Amino acid sequence: MIRTQCNRLARLSTIVVLDVCAIALLVPVTAAQLLTFSKQDLIDYTAQNPFDRLPDGRPRVPDDLLERARGISSEEVWAVLQQKGFNNQYADGFQVLHPGKTLVGRAFTVQFMPLRSDIDDIAKAKARDHGVPRLTNQTAIDMLQPGDVLVVDLFGKKANGTIVGDNLFYYVMKATHGGGLVVDGSIRDLDGLSEIDMPAYFRAADPTPIGNVMLTGINVPVRIGAVTVMPGDLVVGDREGVYFIPPQFVKELLDHADEIHIHDEWTKMKFDEGKYKSSEIYSSPTDPKLQQEYQEYLKKRLEEIRKQRSSK
Amino acid sequence: MIRTQCNRLARLSTIVVLDVCAIALLVPVTAAQLLTFSKQDLIDYTAQNPFDRLPDGRPRVPDDLLERARGISSEEVWAVLQQKGFNNQYADGFQVLHPGKTLVGRAFTVQFMPLRSDIDDIAKAKARDHGVPRLTNQTAIDMLQPGDVLVVDLFGKKANGTIVGDNLFYYVMKATHGGGLVVDGSIRDLDGLSEIDMPAYFRAADPTPIGNVMLTGINVPVRIGAVTVMPGDLVVGDREGVYFIPPQFVKELLDHADEIHIHDEWTKMKFDEGKYKSSEIYSSPTDPKLQQEYQEYLKKRLEEIRKQRSSK
Amino acid sequence: MIRTQCNRLARLSTIVVLDVCAIALLVPVTAAQLLTFSKQDLIDYTAQNPFDRLPDGRPRVPDDLLERARGISSEEVWAVLQQKGFNNQYADGFQVLHPGKTLVGRAFTVQFMPLRSDIDDIAKAKARDHGVPRLTNQTAIDMLQPGDVLVVDLFGKKANGTIVGDNLFYYVMKATHGGGLVVDGSIRDLDGLSEIDMPAYFRAADPTPIGNVMLTGINVPVRIGAVTVMPGDLVVGDREGVYFIPPQFVKELLDHADEIHIHDEWTKMKFDEGKYKSSEIYSSPTDPKLQQEYQEYLKKRLEEIRKQRSSK
Amino acid sequence: MIRTQCNRLARLSTIVVLDVCAIALLVPVTAAQLLTFSKQDLIDYTAQNPFDRLPDGRPRVPDDLLERARGISSEEVWAVLQQKGFNNQYADGFQVLHPGKTLVGRAFTVQFMPLRSDIDDIAKAKARDHGVPRLTNQTAIDMLQPGDVLVVDLFGKKANGTIVGDNLFYYVMKATHGGGLVVDGSIRDLDGLSEIDMPAYFRAADPTPIGNVMLTGINVPVRIGAVTVMPGDLVVGDREGVYFIPPQFVKELLDHADEIHIHDEWTKMKFDEGKYKSSEIYSSPTDPKLQQEYQEYLKKRLEEIRKQRSSK
Amino acid sequence: MIRTQCNRLARLSTIVVLDVCAIALLVPVTAAQLLTFSKQDLIDYTAQNPFDRLPDGRPRVPDDLLERARGISSEEVWAVLQQKGFNNQYADGFQVLHPGKTLVGRAFTVQFMPLRSDIDDIAKAKARDHGVPRLTNQTAIDMLQPGDVLVVDLFGKKANGTIVGDNLFYYVMKATHGGGLVVDGSIRDLDGLSEIDMPAYFRAADPTPIGNVMLTGINVPVRIGAVTVMPGDLVVGDREGVYFIPPQFVKELLDHADEIHIHDEWTKMKFDEGKYKSSEIYSSPTDPKLQQEYQEYLKKRLEEIRKQRSSK
Amino acid sequence: MIRTQCNRLARLSTIVVLDVCAIALLVPVTAAQLLTFSKQDLIDYTAQNPFDRLPDGRPRVPDDLLERARGISSEEVWAVLQQKGFNNQYADGFQVLHPGKTLVGRAFTVQFMPLRSDIDDIAKAKARDHGVPRLTNQTAIDMLQPGDVLVVDLFGKKANGTIVGDNLFYYVMKATHGGGLVVDGSIRDLDGLSEIDMPAYFRAADPTPIGNVMLTGINVPVRIGAVTVMPGDLVVGDREGVYFIPPQFVKELLDHADEIHIHDEWTKMKFDEGKYKSSEIYSSPTDPKLQQEYQEYLKKRLEEIRKQRSSK
Repeated sequence: MIRTQCNRLARLSTIVVLDVCAIALLVPVTAAQLLTFSKQDLIDYTAQNPFDRLPDGRPRVPDDLLERARGISSEEVWAVLQQKGFNNQYADGFQVLHPGKTLVGRAFTVQFMPLRSDIDDIAKAKARDHGVPRLTNQTAIDMLQPGDVLVVDLFGKKANGTIVGDNLFYYVMKATHGGGLVVDGSIRDLDGLSEIDMPAYFRAADPTPIGNVMLTGINVPVRIGAVTVMPGDLVVGDREGVYFIPPQFVKELLDHADEIHIHDEWTKMKFDEGKYKSSEIYSSPTDPKLQQEYQEYLKKRLEEIRKQRSSK
Repeated sequence: MIRTQCNRLARLSTIVVLDVCAIALLVPVTAAQLLTFSKQDLIDYTAQNPFDRLPDGRPRVPDDLLERARGISSEEVWAVLQQKGFNNQYADGFQVLHPGKTLVGRAFTVQFMPLRSDIDDIAKAKARDHGVPRLTNQTAIDMLQPGDVLVVDLFGKKANGTIVGDNLFYYVMKATHGGGLVVDGSIRDLDGLSEIDMPAYFRAADPTPIGNVMLTGINVPVRIGAVTVMPGDLVVGDREGVYFIPPQFVKELLDHADEIHIHDEWTKMKFDEGKYKSSEIYSSPTDPKLQQEYQEYLKKRLEEIRKQRSSK
Repeated sequence: MIRTQCNRLARLSTIVVLDVCAIALLVPVTAAQLLTFSKQDLIDYTAQNPFDRLPDGRPRVPDDLLERARGISSEEVWAVLQQKGFNNQYADGFQVLHPGKTLVGRAFTVQFMPLRSDIDDIAKAKARDHGVPRLTNQTAIDMLQPGDVLVVDLFGKKANGTIVGDNLFYYVMKATHGGGLVVDGSIRDLDGLSEIDMPAYFRAADPTPIGNVMLTGINVPVRIGAVTVMPGDLVVGDREGVYFIPPQFVKELLDHADEIHIHDEWTKMKFDEGKYKSSEIYSSPTDPKLQQEYQEYLKKRLEEIRKQRSSK
Repeated sequence: MIRTQCNRLARLSTIVVLDVCAIALLVPVTAAQLLTFSKQDLIDYTAQNPFDRLPDGRPRVPDDLLERARGISSEEVWAVLQQKGFNNQYADGFQVLHPGKTLVGRAFTVQFMPLRSDIDDIAKAKARDHGVPRLTNQTAIDMLQPGDVLVVDLFGKKANGTIVGDNLFYYVMKATHGGGLVVDGSIRDLDGLSEIDMPAYFRAADPTPIGNVMLTGINVPVRIGAVTVMPGDLVVGDREGVYFIPPQFVKELLDHADEIHIHDEWTKMKFDEGKYKSSEIYSSPTDPKLQQEYQEYLKKRLEEIRKQRSSK
Repeated sequence: MIRTQCNRLARLSTIVVLDVCAIALLVPVTAAQLLTFSKQDLIDYTAQNPFDRLPDGRPRVPDDLLERARGISSEEVWAVLQQKGFNNQYADGFQVLHPGKTLVGRAFTVQFMPLRSDIDDIAKAKARDHGVPRLTNQTAIDMLQPGDVLVVDLFGKKANGTIVGDNLFYYVMKATHGGGLVVDGSIRDLDGLSEIDMPAYFRAADPTPIGNVMLTGINVPVRIGAVTVMPGDLVVGDREGVYFIPPQFVKELLDHADEIHIHDEWTKMKFDEGKYKSSEIYSSPTDPKLQQEYQEYLKKRLEEIRKQRSSK
Repeated sequence: MIRTQCNRLARLSTIVVLDVCAIALLVPVTAAQLLTFSKQDLIDYTAQNPFDRLPDGRPRVPDDLLERARGISSEEVWAVLQQKGFNNQYADGFQVLHPGKTLVGRAFTVQFMPLRSDIDDIAKAKARDHGVPRLTNQTAIDMLQPGDVLVVDLFGKKANGTIVGDNLFYYVMKATHGGGLVVDGSIRDLDGLSEIDMPAYFRAADPTPIGNVMLTGINVPVRIGAVTVMPGDLVVGDREGVYFIPPQFVKELLDHADEIHIHDEWTKMKFDEGKYKSSEIYSSPTDPKLQQEYQEYLKKRLEEIRKQRSSK
């Protein structure tokens, strides 16, 4: 019944209304999951978030910053985070579905654990008591919002660790507006996924469907490789791997990336002149005149970029 | 001399005559291999085959079914085989030469074992007694038929485990009419192979030629990963891995795939409407009206597909 | 201050009083950990537990059953659990400190996640608010009870994933009365540990101390390999690996093991006679007379065992 | 009925009579296995065997040579076989049950392949037609003879790849008079096996029983690692790995090992004198006088050894 | 000051002048590196070099031979080198940046070892005494010449083993005129590198910069996988891996490759006729008439190729 | 001839005279090796060495400190070295021949590289020119001194990467007075080695002899895992792995270890009292009174140890 109403409203405005339904759904689901991490817990543990929040409590990195984040690389993220002492935010070793297509979005986290029927029976009974008929991967997928990246801890499982096939991957693309997927586990129907234009990072592909696992958390802190991922983290992926960026660092990081881009432009320009050894130019010019030339170039370009952005 | 005659005939009609020559060659070769698996053995062990047989005794999955098999995925094969209790028919972990190009054909199996000269000398003497001058990878390759996929057990060998380079791979393409190759071993000249338009699955590439092994079986049961492959199995490969399908399941499997394709069409159509949660549509609609809509769509599309096929 | 009082009481009776202090400590610690799993949650999720509970809510498999469990093997555990459909209770791939010395005890679980200072600062502040000065591995170790096995999820970390060195391992032995340790992570000072008589299972040894992690849960459900471990599970380890047994199956499992032991005795006795093929005796005698002989032997031995136990 | 008669005879003389029964059993079993390798095939392919044969056609390396083989090492085997151009006779990477206890015996080979029910049903039907009620690991184990080493190709399978547990391992020890086991697969009940005094080499230990496989050959050529093992090969294992030695080289290899042993004695004696650099003594003395001294020592010791042997 | 002068000269003619500066720089750098391998050592150890030498002593495989080498494959290199008994010249297991783009150039080798500050301090002091202000990856990169391939031993290091990011990779492309990179270590900024048109072979990609290592040799013999690479070796890489070819074999190898290319042309032409079994044509025709036809074709094509080359 | 004289002298006093011969031999050998690292280089690069030097230039950690080093563990070494910023001095992943027997001695380093005959021919010619007839593993082994640990870089080679078998291992034991062996490569005859009472750390065991390599350096800096090992480093190995300690830190490290030993004594004593939580005692007592008690214990025990040592 909840659904019918949601769907009716949804005809008016998909994005806003989905939020409403998701909240309605959120309460019973979190009540049923094995590990509790309430909306208040999430707010407490992400107190440094400088942005608004989504109705489910997750920090909402603004859309314009998401857009700017499409231009950053793992190296630029590394530069800022290591300086802040955040050395555990990067995961790699994934198969990358579309190399060259950057992954950007807000982390929507899901956790599974190996099936143990005595536990799962109770979790399902609790769910039913709260009006949630099934506790499966689709329970989580149905809650996805535009701009989300689905981040799934399936503990590296290959066979029966397949979070989506082509049908659900297509739905995720529609629901997140092309956000993306990171799974420490597998996907199925790789041929089908390859034709869908959304970034995905996974450990393996396998023909089996998901199984022998139980859903233990939605939007709880999860571990992907050596990273503790918090719901609402900014997720950025390139050909190398995936960074999970705490919201409090997003703005500074993007501003810093602007400077690195300009530095790269100028460095290549100088190398193209063919007059300098690499160490005379990079990482910073040894000749004071060149140093001054660079500083002026940097200033000029930063202004151009700002104008360009504000004119949008 | 046998060869001269074969070649003369071959000028008239390649396909048919190759069969004749292959049979002529088959008897002496099987007599010389270390492990015996006679044509009668093959017929006995594939008694459930519903189709004709090739002159060498292998089940002959018909050409029109091979054609239809180009449209199936690993997931669709899995769906039927696991239901039949056939859980050991899938192998992965290969390098895929042309991702996106489906592999389809009838298994022509070849087995090698590590060289042991006392054994190999006797096998070769037996071969010579039957008029087979050499027992090498080419002895097997010369027997390939249109529609075959060359399936080779080289026990994962990398150095000197290279079943073909670009010359023989080109010949295999010509002889099988683009059938394909699956080798639990390696290939050489990856650059050369990349320019030839035939699917191939292999463990590694290496510059060495094949060596330090002995041919121990042609069209005998072989093991590829965790699969027992029988000569004549339908081989289907996609970006994920390779399925070896017993002939008795081919027809049912393809019919089932038609329904899955239609199901995917309809599911995506519904997701495109943007009105439904994934769990309302997938894997089956919860609303009885939608359920009925789907059933009608399925019926209509199945009829269209059948008409289209019969009109060919 | 709490401590001083505990220690004073502890002089009277170590075991009982430790319980009291543990409870006193338990409340503030669980309030401060990232993921919440309350005593009530634990009781709800282990509702099938047929035994008493420890003050912290964990099922208390009785001491006499722990004693009997020292005689079972992984195979006997497997036999019962697979029949119940519990196929995800076994983990292996560990280094075993003392092969031949069986591990038996009640699971006391601890979870760590990669350090993320924004999160950890809040957790520590919450802890301090509840009077817990530090949140470290020792916070958990100080809560161990006699009969416990310390089960630690350190996500396979080697460097800085060392839950204990020889000093803390010695303390764990004292506090648990030789219970044991299972860590999906590492230990340090392997030479020192080797001289201490308590079973331990670990992934690696490393000279670094624990670091770059944060304590995220005590007595919460944790994952070790492909097992969801619940606090209070019966932990049994042999040369092969470790079983985590839900309390509801312990009694049946031990009774079944008695029969297997007798079956093994009888089978070996028969093999010693040298008159039978293995298949005539094992797994059950084909000759009806032998079958009857076995049944009588089984009955007689079971009675002897029961008498022996009740006389203790 | 065959069995009853065998058992009755077996009371008189275990060893001889077992042979008789084994032959009786051999015919139907080989008729039912997937790959055919007849007694005549075996005789043909081991034509260089200089010794008698067992009733099943396997070369019978004599008991006194088995006894002498207990003193050789992998290095001594290597020295002769590489000189003969036999470089594919060694396998390693095993877990060794009793390091320090040499494995020696005649290879009794068994092959399994992944289960495929259409194939297995036919094999079992053929077996029943020949009076063999079951085709399992015990079918093969029941055929073992004193002095045999059970050599099993289970293609590296861990879960459900367990050829024996402690009961059947005990039977194998009784039937082979402590011969031994080499399995490219796993065993179960490692604690139980550890208490039984017979060498064993295996890839892993696992609590599951054997399953999801089919018996495809008894005393056929099998592959273990990079070795083609023939039935009747001399199997020799030490702390490093296992050699499979063709019978035609056994005598020469053991004579050569006598000389190496004497060479080692003399070399260490000289090193003990503390007067020489290693290169002055090893691998052969550079000083002609020392060379002569060594030759005389060698001659004297060889004579002593021969006398000692003939006096037995 | 040296640099200023170099740069001024460099305006006249980049290539020649860079050589001059490189030599000026070479003396102090080699004097400061941990392991000494002087220009004279290099000349002594590459005495079989049939070509000129670069000012730094490296053999200079001529530019026209580099050009011809773009057409060879790993297999053609293997064919000649194994015949010469050079079996340790091939390395694989790399990630290949641009599959299908052949790597060709002269080896410029660089070696790093794990940082040890007591050693590195002395090396740096020695360097400063000779006027070299820094000893880093850029010290070596600044010395690269047109036609060089940068070959780096970073002992497989991933984190902090990144020899270049996109800026320095761009410089290497400019300095070597698109020569290339082979690193037994990692690179950073894979997205950036992917847009630069130069071949690269590396073990991994990582966001960290190079660190925790010390530069221990420039143009010294280094080990890459199982290859001892000498400065000035011809480096050839394709989709499979990389060959390091001693200069004395380059001419013979390229002439031999011409014949193999013609052989491949002819073989495919014959296969296209569809009249022959593979073994009748490949590797050499069994029919004497065909053999003669091939010989004439070979002769004709070799002449055409030579004419074409001399006309350039 | 050099040898004859050495041997004659050797009769008088093995240890001293061996030094003399070693020096005599050292000059020609280093002149012939591929990479040059002269005695002066060694002295320059180990300028912080506070001890005497061996005649070959290596730092000579005194015998009494070697003796004290037998009591330290990897953790105690780690504690001091990480504080000094030396984080690259530890290697693990070895097979340990005698777990529980500590490895202690001065590093004598040897380096091999893959064979390349053009290079090796020249190195051998140079060696012969200097009167060194062979360049093999024995060339290095003949130079070992009492107290040395043979540290060999064989780049992880298994087959043909066997630095010693039982004969040479026995000689190494005699020559080094039981010093020990660390090889990033393999050994042969593991059964033989197991009976010889000297510590050894190796990657694998293999029956093949050393081959397909060339000796490229004796007492040059080598890499073992992630460590740069200098000749004369103090080598310490326990059950976990091996530390290579720069001589300048040895004294401080051993004094620090004394304090850790006393701290462990006291900690265990306190735990034995059963009155304290682990965190009240470890790593330092929270109660000021206990803190004082510990300081007095420490002072008393340190004095006892010093008296005990000075009385020897």
